[in-house]
Amino acid sequence: MAATPTNPSTDSGKTPVTVLGLGAMGRALAGAFLKAGHPTTVWNRSEHKADELVARGAVRAGSVAEAVAASPLIVVCVVDYEVSHRILEPVGADLAGRVLVNLTSDTPVRSRRAAEWAAGHGVEYLDGAIMVPTPVIGTPEATVLYSGSRRAFDTYEETLKALGGKAPFLGTDHGVAAVYDLAMLSFFYSGMAGLAHAFTLAGEEGVPATDLAPFLDVITGIFPPIAKGMADDLVGGRLDGAGEGNIVMEAAGIAHIVEASRDRGVNTDVLDALKALMDRTIAAGHGESEFVRVTEAMRGAYA
Amino acid sequence: MAATPTNPSTDSGKTPVTVLGLGAMGRALAGAFLKAGHPTTVWNRSEHKADELVARGAVRAGSVAEAVAASPLIVVCVVDYEVSHRILEPVGADLAGRVLVNLTSDTPVRSRRAAEWAAGHGVEYLDGAIMVPTPVIGTPEATVLYSGSRRAFDTYEETLKALGGKAPFLGTDHGVAAVYDLAMLSFFYSGMAGLAHAFTLAGEEGVPATDLAPFLDVITGIFPPIAKGMADDLVGGRLDGAGEGNIVMEAAGIAHIVEASRDRGVNTDVLDALKALMDRTIAAGHGESEFVRVTEAMRGAYA
Repeated sequence: MAATPTNPSTDSGKTPVTVLGLGAMGRALAGAFLKAGHPTTVWNRSEHKADELVARGAVRAGSVAEAVAASPLIVVCVVDYEVSHRILEPVGADLAGRVLVNLTSDTPVRSRRAAEWAAGHGVEYLDGAIMVPTPVIGTPEATVLYSGSRRAFDTYEETLKALGGKAPFLGTDHGVAAVYDLAMLSFFYSGMAGLAHAFTLAGEEGVPATDLAPFLDVITGIFPPIAKGMADDLVGGRLDGAGEGNIVMEAAGIAHIVEASRDRGVNTDVLDALKALMDRTIAAGHGESEFVRVTEAMRGAYA
Repeated sequence: MAATPTNPSTDSGKTPVTVLGLGAMGRALAGAFLKAGHPTTVWNRSEHKADELVARGAVRAGSVAEAVAASPLIVVCVVDYEVSHRILEPVGADLAGRVLVNLTSDTPVRSRRAAEWAAGHGVEYLDGAIMVPTPVIGTPEATVLYSGSRRAFDTYEETLKALGGKAPFLGTDHGVAAVYDLAMLSFFYSGMAGLAHAFTLAGEEGVPATDLAPFLDVITGIFPPIAKGMADDLVGGRLDGAGEGNIVMEAAGIAHIVEASRDRGVNTDVLDALKALMDRTIAAGHGESEFVRVTEAMRGAYA
């Protein structure tokens, strides 16, 4: 069990913070802490990445151990958990009794593994997922999701809000911030694939992207009520929705997109993959269901 | 060349309209014309589909030829262009000098083929794409896209607005309404795949869909500026965007989603297909480009 985290402050009344990892995101995080008046210690494998932050008042630590010793709150943000583990493993003893916030993006399984390691070293551990690009860090609009140690979150919530004003605590399962992160990113990248395909098909047909874009916004506008409806159906166990859907007709619509794309040499692999899941749903006898039923194919029920 | 379409009216001052095909959408179209006060003649292969419309004042035609003869404006909406051609081919001579509006959903190639057939029979032809579900038909918010004969559109624009208040004319290429239709649907279905995957992954991780849904709306909100930015870049020939992207890091993010999904047995085919296109883009030397560069992989430039 970790020692109870306290909230020690310097004369400024602001919690000293250490940031490990000074890639573009790590620098943005350290910059946000500095801007909010926190005594900020920084460390990076390549020391020069700290130069600009040091010029703004950050303290450059000569080693990870020195960086950890400088603050009760340690924030790490590197490329993945393999790298964060490589950095933290040698300083497990130094971290004991401190709060570690890992903002590295990775899978729920790795977040939970890191939590086990932290528990074994008496480190209070909070996992976080940054949902905004670097320029938005440090603003009231920036969203950073947290899960894991409720106590660590409650102790440092105000400090962490220097990074982003929207800082929901999602649960004591350390992996759940990563679950939200990856689920949101999955929707994001699928949508991006759709935007790219829409512009490509239109472009090959001679329709300028700027002519099409306002029409794509019409589609964007219908996602929130659809997401809400799907969520209500899933939680309510209504896997066929209100029964007013027609996956057969939707699959036929996708077949038209695929055919028109092939007519112009536009790649259809993303839509083919979706259509295969829908065809599996139809073959399983759910052709008249609403689209929400496709989640069953996604979780492998009709494999 | 078709005879100049005129806008003959009955005593009501409203153009008589014929609707061919009374599936759910055809019935909604006929109902909207009736509600707007148009003398409406209807025909369907299975006659009983007309019963409710006849009760509301529609005239049931005993044959396609009789239905066509009843009005200067003929609207057809069936399952695909193969079916619409089968219905229209025998009455080509009857259609001469009238305006045909085909609201059947299909590919641009088939729309253009239908336009050639219509031109060969002296039929003024307008192609349309309905972008809303049946309950929205007949409202000011309903969008129906049109392309093809500008003259037919100008003559009947007000009549057609009985179907949907948003009725943009997109160009004299008969296929262009279908291009917009399919491009919009491509974005829609890719987004739907993303919603389904997000809810499935979260569900398998124990996160209720209703907890996740509000966070997905955050993602929805960022699509319009991204779509605008991509469109501006494409039209401006900036295939790497502003050069601040990082497809390598985005592909790594997708790899995390894929790994976390496989950890829970969630199908990853859609994301795998997107990642393959991104990997091809990276292999072609564009790993530091913005996502807009993936459109090049989609059009087969890196095959």
